[in-house]
Amino acid sequence: MPVPGEYKVIDAILTRRSVREFNDRPISKEEINTILNAGRWAPSGLNNQPWRFVVVRAPETIHKLSGCTHYSSIVEGAPLLIAAFLDTEHSYDRTKDVQAIGASIQNMLLACCDLGLGAVWLGEILKQHEKVNSILNCPSKLELMAVLAIGEPAPGKRTSTRKSLSELVFDEIYGQKWEE
Amino acid sequence: MPVPGEYKVIDAILTRRSVREFNDRPISKEEINTILNAGRWAPSGLNNQPWRFVVVRAPETIHKLSGCTHYSSIVEGAPLLIAAFLDTEHSYDRTKDVQAIGASIQNMLLACCDLGLGAVWLGEILKQHEKVNSILNCPSKLELMAVLAIGEPAPGKRTSTRKSLSELVFDEIYGQKWEE
Repeated sequence: MPVPGEYKVIDAILTRRSVREFNDRPISKEEINTILNAGRWAPSGLNNQPWRFVVVRAPETIHKLSGCTHYSSIVEGAPLLIAAFLDTEHSYDRTKDVQAIGASIQNMLLACCDLGLGAVWLGEILKQHEKVNSILNCPSKLELMAVLAIGEPAPGKRTSTRKSLSELVFDEIYGQKWEE
Repeated sequence: MPVPGEYKVIDAILTRRSVREFNDRPISKEEINTILNAGRWAPSGLNNQPWRFVVVRAPETIHKLSGCTHYSSIVEGAPLLIAAFLDTEHSYDRTKDVQAIGASIQNMLLACCDLGLGAVWLGEILKQHEKVNSILNCPSKLELMAVLAIGEPAPGKRTSTRKSLSELVFDEIYGQKWEE
């Protein structure tokens, strides 16, 4: 495995896996700034930058947020959460703005990988978006898009799978399967 | 600037810029496979992988697609287009699936950067999604999400800007500005 800071782009993209167990090493301000800068440099339609973030490290806030999801043990065990929101007052096209936030989140996940940190993108917590907004004092114009749980990975092997290119890609026109 | 294949993750994320002018060097199958593999390894809610892609290299198809957007000269000048779709028959949550497609597109843009290729994410073409689907013979269950125009960059300087972290990020609760 590459060492932190030495990941090549493609390696990070292909080897990044969701990490759900963390040790308790606190994440430094410098590391958090690196993650946030990766997030803000994502592309967006009309360079609209519709993303807003709340950085959470306070144990009592993390504990409250852990009550908003079935995955409470993941949230509770993370030293750092980043809640990502769509600023609906600065949205120009919902589909494009939501895509942009996905790109921003992916940048942050790749930055974590590069820093030697683990992270998982939590979506199920959106079911309790009102409660999350209330805990974080967010106005309703901020629509919760995801929560990232971040920390130094606990030991463990993480695997995943993806569909093959032939299941996903067409060559020139629909119906004509892409052959690698 | 790093050489192709030697980009560090963070460098690629921070230095990637939209490229809208290309030379006419054809893009190899190996390069296209690298880009597509980056796209398919994006994360998605429930590992749903709702993305589908059509790879377009035929000049007559590129010409037809250039008629679907105000940015026809960008499309016309690209040796490679990748049209990204949401498979609405395999969507479980529109917001999360659209985010996932944004993550997948960002992976492909970063992979292009790593390969020394330039790319631009085209969204305005969505206005003519029915015409695009017709040209690519796509059924209506495939909803156009974006078209990427890709090629070897023509010489030129590309710049961009982003909001500062203090405009985007809050510390612990909304209203409390993040200080770097």
